[in-house]
Amino acid sequence: MNSYSPAVVVREVGLRDGLQILPRTVPTEHKLGWLRAAHAAGLREIEVGSFVPARLMPQLADTALIVEAARKLPGLVTSVLVPNVKGAQAAIEAQADAMLLPLSASRAHSLANLRKTPDEVVEEIARIRSLRDATGSSCVLEVGLSTAFGCTIQGRVDEDEVIRLVKAVIDAGAERVGLADTVGYADPLQVERLFERCFAVAGDRLTCGHFHDTRGLGLANVYAAWRAGARRFDACVGGIGGCPHAPGASGNVATEDVAYLFASMGVATGLDFHALIALRDSLATRWLPGETLHGNIWRAGLPKTMKEAA
Amino acid sequence: MNSYSPAVVVREVGLRDGLQILPRTVPTEHKLGWLRAAHAAGLREIEVGSFVPARLMPQLADTALIVEAARKLPGLVTSVLVPNVKGAQAAIEAQADAMLLPLSASRAHSLANLRKTPDEVVEEIARIRSLRDATGSSCVLEVGLSTAFGCTIQGRVDEDEVIRLVKAVIDAGAERVGLADTVGYADPLQVERLFERCFAVAGDRLTCGHFHDTRGLGLANVYAAWRAGARRFDACVGGIGGCPHAPGASGNVATEDVAYLFASMGVATGLDFHALIALRDSLATRWLPGETLHGNIWRAGLPKTMKEAA
Repeated sequence: MNSYSPAVVVREVGLRDGLQILPRTVPTEHKLGWLRAAHAAGLREIEVGSFVPARLMPQLADTALIVEAARKLPGLVTSVLVPNVKGAQAAIEAQADAMLLPLSASRAHSLANLRKTPDEVVEEIARIRSLRDATGSSCVLEVGLSTAFGCTIQGRVDEDEVIRLVKAVIDAGAERVGLADTVGYADPLQVERLFERCFAVAGDRLTCGHFHDTRGLGLANVYAAWRAGARRFDACVGGIGGCPHAPGASGNVATEDVAYLFASMGVATGLDFHALIALRDSLATRWLPGETLHGNIWRAGLPKTMKEAA
Repeated sequence: MNSYSPAVVVREVGLRDGLQILPRTVPTEHKLGWLRAAHAAGLREIEVGSFVPARLMPQLADTALIVEAARKLPGLVTSVLVPNVKGAQAAIEAQADAMLLPLSASRAHSLANLRKTPDEVVEEIARIRSLRDATGSSCVLEVGLSTAFGCTIQGRVDEDEVIRLVKAVIDAGAERVGLADTVGYADPLQVERLFERCFAVAGDRLTCGHFHDTRGLGLANVYAAWRAGARRFDACVGGIGGCPHAPGASGNVATEDVAYLFASMGVATGLDFHALIALRDSLATRWLPGETLHGNIWRAGLPKTMKEAA
């Protein structure tokens, strides 16, 4: 789908994971400006919204419009979150390039959020795959295993259960799987271990790491997953997407920080650092004024060694 | 020197590295309260000050008094920074357990700061070792190689030069060597590589990693050094010690964050997390009011998984 092959792909999820917890609704025109700025900064995979019922998430009710605009941006993989078959149907109709279905590895979290067990969600994945194949769509089906490193409700999540679910979703037809730490519980040693174990069962279908910086370990966890072989990471410009129950706590790892991490190691991402910082400024001043942004590198700027290299 | 052997030692340097850049002078009584609280939180190596001329650093003019108090705390390794033979003489007279001499791996930084080349500093280290041995003191001589990962003046610092200097300071009589990234230029891949190379020449004399969180990679770098075999790390409660030229930028990695990182990985440090957070609060309200503190874990607190384990 992408003519340029960077060593690491950063998948921007701010328009979905960042916005879904905010009480405000960002006007469609603003989202389109944000989307275009993200694309201009070199981002080539963007999760632009979610096909959930508008009454549950009015902030994302314009997802079909955003997908339509995103599809016109050259070389962009347009991705949407879908919670179920109905959402998948909408994603296929909108001609999104990829759809991501979240699956809680924590049984307690799955029951509390969806009133479904993880295995019931696996059955939904199989139905989505059948629907996708029946329609002749090429929309890639990806599953994100949330709470893979621990859960605010259940606490510990057994690693064997994560491995079992990774196998189950692949058997059910998922083409890609990712591991997500949406609550900021992961530590880098655990990340290396679990990614290694998952690569052993999922091979190159394990493609994505999704880390939050809630407790300051976000970038250490990205590094640990990269060491284990992960080459694709979710992130949000400005580190938005924090937990609504922990005001002020950091959210997703910041796209500009992840870009800096890999640039500092000499690993190509295709991202334009200064354009990302400019996008962060636009979030602060135009599209999310008053919102607490996070991240680190924007404050100190690039080191002299990298300025010389650039 | 220490009866308890944790898997990782965190060396608190706030009373020296944190205070030396602040224009304010913290009263001796406050420093003593801070020192006692740090010891009570489980810290068993504390850099309590620096034997530099009081006219250059009036904030640290009471170092001899602090050393005297620190020596009475059970099981504490009392460490001081010394810039030269004269400082070493003072450290030996004060009966400090260890003295740390900084050496810039960057020639430009060394000349700008000390008007000495790195090799002239190596000669000073040899003189300090002779003095130490002649006095019969057991004060451990440690060298911290600053700007080992890059320099704000010189830019790139050649890794071969770092290796050469590590060998040179050991030949000159240093009993311990550490690698320091005081400017926040290091990346985790570089950290793993340089620590591995230094272990190959220094063996167990390479003992310490000193990282700043200036660009958000502090904890990733601690993890990378730990992966390469480092088991002793400098840190400051509240992440103080930022660069005076970059207001608001993070300073040293925060002691409480490093404690959390290792606790999350199941690696013992002997540190009391809640006592460290309480000490951070005391810095904010009593001993450094108005000062910008940093760090991450204080905001979100421990995850449920660790509360259950504790």
